[in-house]
This record gives sequence, structure tokens and C-alpha cells, in this order.
Amino acid sequence: MKPLRIAHVAPVATRIPPEKSGSVQTMTSLLTEGLVARGHDVTLFAPGDSITAGTLHAIYPHGYLHDETMWPWELYEMLNIAAAVERAASFDIIHYEAAYYPMSLAFSRLSATPVVQTLHHAPRPSEVALWRQYPDAPFIAISEEQARLLDGLNVAGVVLHGIDTKRFAFREQPDDYLLFLGRFTAGKGVLQAIEVARRIGVRLVLAAAEEAYYRQFVAPHVDGRQVVYVGEADFDAKVELYGGARALLYPVQSPEPFGLVLAEAMVCGTPAAALDLGAVREVVDDGITGGVFDDLEAMTAGLERVLALDRRHVRAHALAKFSVERMTDEYVAVYRKIADAAARLRHTR
Amino acid sequence: MKPLRIAHVAPVATRIPPEKSGSVQTMTSLLTEGLVARGHDVTLFAPGDSITAGTLHAIYPHGYLHDETMWPWELYEMLNIAAAVERAASFDIIHYEAAYYPMSLAFSRLSATPVVQTLHHAPRPSEVALWRQYPDAPFIAISEEQARLLDGLNVAGVVLHGIDTKRFAFREQPDDYLLFLGRFTAGKGVLQAIEVARRIGVRLVLAAAEEAYYRQFVAPHVDGRQVVYVGEADFDAKVELYGGARALLYPVQSPEPFGLVLAEAMVCGTPAAALDLGAVREVVDDGITGGVFDDLEAMTAGLERVLALDRRHVRAHALAKFSVERMTDEYVAVYRKIADAAARLRHTR
Repeated sequence: MKPLRIAHVAPVATRIPPEKSGSVQTMTSLLTEGLVARGHDVTLFAPGDSITAGTLHAIYPHGYLHDETMWPWELYEMLNIAAAVERAASFDIIHYEAAYYPMSLAFSRLSATPVVQTLHHAPRPSEVALWRQYPDAPFIAISEEQARLLDGLNVAGVVLHGIDTKRFAFREQPDDYLLFLGRFTAGKGVLQAIEVARRIGVRLVLAAAEEAYYRQFVAPHVDGRQVVYVGEADFDAKVELYGGARALLYPVQSPEPFGLVLAEAMVCGTPAAALDLGAVREVVDDGITGGVFDDLEAMTAGLERVLALDRRHVRAHALAKFSVERMTDEYVAVYRKIADAAARLRHTR
Repeated sequence: MKPLRIAHVAPVATRIPPEKSGSVQTMTSLLTEGLVARGHDVTLFAPGDSITAGTLHAIYPHGYLHDETMWPWELYEMLNIAAAVERAASFDIIHYEAAYYPMSLAFSRLSATPVVQTLHHAPRPSEVALWRQYPDAPFIAISEEQARLLDGLNVAGVVLHGIDTKRFAFREQPDDYLLFLGRFTAGKGVLQAIEVARRIGVRLVLAAAEEAYYRQFVAPHVDGRQVVYVGEADFDAKVELYGGARALLYPVQSPEPFGLVLAEAMVCGTPAAALDLGAVREVVDDGITGGVFDDLEAMTAGLERVLALDRRHVRAHALAKFSVERMTDEYVAVYRKIADAAARLRHTR
């Protein structure tokens, strides 16, 4: 099939890929490079210090995150997506990564080429109600869970994130601890992780940035033996921690549209024990790459089963499921569907 | 001449006109109704509870200011201007009132009809640098002072604001006080107003909302005799205060792109004594509707001259200068200039 001409519109907070963290920026880079590797003609609309094998279209030398003169940031985002839409005739599809909200909707009826948006959060009902002003504008959801929230909108496809699997080393023989990695918030369920680990008597390692919630609610449980706090992990430390863990605990308390740490742990061969909320059941394959439980009771009772999973099997399954190639191919399929529908519409007019 | 088909895009924070205050919303309403009165075909893009003799195009039942589910507000603004641009073929000109920043720039190359923006603040150099991505997009400045700040942009015209002059009653014989009306900030010069009033020994009435700055810096000077604080004035109280004042003191310390209180006071017949900063010299006609001074020393020395000005003359001059009719006619002239240039461009292509 003919390669696609794709405008990939990144958030302009930081360079693509980000120097440190930034899940949306990382995913944007992986997809751009994945598309280029598949032979597509990709123009990345991103800050000028971005790095890509595609064509970089930069209207700013750098992102606004560390430049306080670049304010209000919203206008920088708007002019970046506008730059793509102004060149719509050069593309078969324009894909906007909505790190904050799908401002691309405002351009969808003004573009000669279809504009599709990927959302990176779980939208509130009031947001979705507003977006219904554009019921035809295509979204690509990052999970069925998120697709369900996009009620009344045109969800053209669901594509789970891929991750840079080669950067997550496999480790067959873990150390003797469970891992909580993420942010210290009530929604992430760190207190529940502590409870489960205590009940089964296995050491729990906590890795996250120290925040007010940590000091108030978590620190009292940290004793350096049963519950160990290692601070915030950079990328290398994170991979190390995943690999050494017998399992990742993910007793999430508020629904999330994806769960990047689950995918990352599983690619390292580490099974995940998670509560069945949000997109968890889509990311973790119960009995294969981890366990999905209804409540803490069930998680505690079922943890042995998770720990007994074959780590090579976890790794292999996760490698296939979260590869950039799989993500890229699925995005391309949705792009083609949207572009073909638009072409047919132009024809019948 | 043929009436113009005008899309007037309001901010969608509140209804147009606003129930209480809101200078941008008030000016938007005055211009819309002024254009309708002149026979133009005006579509006002504004919340559904707005009131206009033109055609109301509302995509929201009400503004977001008092509805916390309508968030982030930026997207509401974007979709409102998008609604106008999507209908560009129905208009000769689209006029965006940029209450915050000119997001309309993002649409300017996507619109079949010229989009012109009026800015309502004094932009920072970093903002203007960003907007230079669109050097052809026409701005209408609200003063020469603001036009000067829009360096490197296409300033198609300068139109001073009009006000609803019939709501500002003339009073020939004032009471014996000077007036400071505005906000209690260092930039507005309230402490300087107190100093001037003290030095010439005339009572000063302060009317503004009580804020931290008031309590810390202003309240120590308020004695109920020489310096009187009357709280925040609603519209009727404001007109009453203007009319009773021998002069409005406006010893502004940071430049402003307009000075609505100056215009309002002068329409009531009350001369203004102001420091020569920002747009002051454009709004106050020195020796006719007030005095414009280089510093506090000069203002103190020259205040008698301001107090001696003929209030009927101040009123008459201000009525002509700040009428909605004058503002409307000047906007129409700029609209025609922009629309004609766009038509010529289409022709030569």
C-alpha cells in the first residue's frame, strides 16, 4: 500500500522525545519513529530541539516548560496545531496528541485533511459534553475504558500504547520484594499496596517522588524492613526496580485510561497484581501476565498465583502486546480508515 | 455603501452585555449594537443568555465564569471563534475580541474571510514575538500606545473605545472632593493620589474593592476627613461619584493601553488630572478635558488649572470623543479597509 503522509502534532512543552520524563512526549516519539520505520512520510510538529528521523516542523526553538516567557502556553499549542492544519493539503492525516485537551477539535471543520486526536487522560463528563459539538471528529482511544468515556463521540479506533521494549531489560530471577511504583496519591493505592504486602509478609519497595501525601500518609508505614522507601527512580533505577521485583502491586483506587507502569513491569518479566478498575483488565492479562482482582481480599489471597507465573512467559507476552510495531500498525490501520472515509466523502460531494 | 456582514466574536465568560462589570463585554455589546444601529448585518457569537438586536449565535447556554464544569475555559473560547470561522463564507469580516490573548491568530490563515482582532491589554514583548508568526493578521489597536506595543504586527487601525454616554449623567456643580476610582494597586497610583490631595488640601474619595493592597498600604492613610474610603462602587454609585467630584485623579504608575475611568469621568463633566503614561495623552485632551502632567510636582502645581475647566465644555468634548457612534464608524472604516484588501487579493490571485 502507498505510504501515508502524516502530520504528527506533538505537545510543545518539551522536546520530542523528552530529556527526562513525559509519557505523552515519549509515546509521541515512539509512534513517529515507528511510522518512519514503516516507510511513512511523517512530519513531526514539535519544538526545534526535538530529534526525529522524520521531517521536523518547528515553529519554536524549544518547549515552553522551562521558559517562563513562553506564556500562556495554550497559544503555543494552538499555533503548533494550526501550522499543521494550514498545510493540510500536504498530508493524508493530521494526528494531534492532546496532552491536555483536544483543542484540535476547533480545527476539524477547517481542515482539508481529517484531523484525529488521541487523548491522554480520562475526561470528565462535562468535557465530553463540550466535545460533542464535534460528533464527527475522530478520536483514537488509548483503551476501551477511555473509549467508553468518549460517549457520543466518534471513536475511530482503540490502540493501546507501545513502549520502548528494548530499554526494559528482562530479569529471570528477581529479588525478594514487591514493588509499588508511581505517584503517592490516594488514587494510586499506595496504602492498599502496603496493606497487601504486610498481610502476605513480603517486603514492599516504594519508588515515587516525595510529596505532601507521602509525608502525611505513607511515611508512618515506612520502617526500612517491611516497607522500604527508595525515593523517586530515574529511568535506569526504574528498570532495575522492575526487574528485581517478584511482582508489581497496582491496587489502583480511581480508574485510569491506561497503566504504563503495568506494561513496563511486565516487559521486564515482572507480573502485576492489580485491582480491576479502569483499563487494568485490558493491560494485564489475568493469569498470563499478572492477576486482576476485584478487591484487596482477593488480591491478597491470589498473590501467590501471580508470583508463580513464568517470568519468561510474562516477558514474551508483554513484548508482543506492547511493542511499538504493534502500536504503529494499529495506528496506521485507523489512519487509513479515516483517510479513506474522508476521500469517499469528498468523492460523493 | 452596502451594509457589511459582520461576525462579532465575544469572549464567552459571561453574557453580552455583562450583568455587572466587564469592560470587554460591555465594549463588545456597545459595538455590536452600534453596528446594528448603523444597518449592518451583525452576528454576535456569545453565550445564549446574551441580549442583542443582531443575530445571536450561541453554542453555550451561558458563560463559563460562574459554571465550574465549563473548564478549561480556553477550549470554550476556541470553539466559539471556530464556530464563526466555520461560517466564514457568510461574513465579510470576522472580528474577535481578545479578552485574554489573540487565539484568533490560529484561525487567520484557515478562514476564507479576514479575521481581525482587538486586544484589550498591554502585551508583553514575548507575546508580541509569538504573534509575529502571523505578521499579516490585522489588529485593531485601542490606542496609539497599544499600537506601538504591537511592533512588527499588522495594525490596521486605531480605534479608541466608546462608552454608553447616555448612562453617565452630567453634573454642572460638583461637591468639594477629588476622586480616585479604580483598583488598589501600585500601578494605579492610589498612594500618589493621596499625596496630591493632601498637598493641595482637598478631600479625596477612594472608591475601589478592598484588597490586600488596600489593607496594607492604603488603609493607614484613610482618616474619614482628608481621605475617605467608600468601598467598591456599583454602576449607579460610580456615576454619582464622578458627578460629585471636582476632578478625577489618575496618577497612574504603569502604562495602560486605555483608561476607561478617564472617559467615564469626563463624560460626566468631571475633568481628569493624570500622569503622562501609556494612553493617557490620547484619552485626556490637555487643557480641554483635563490636565496631563509629567510628574506629581507638576500635577500638584497644575491642579487648580484643571479644577477651573468648564465642566460643560469637558462634557461636550468627551461626548463627541467617546460616543459609540464615533467608535462604530471608525470600526466600520477599518473593517471595509481590511475586507476590500482581502477582496483585491482574491482578485489578483
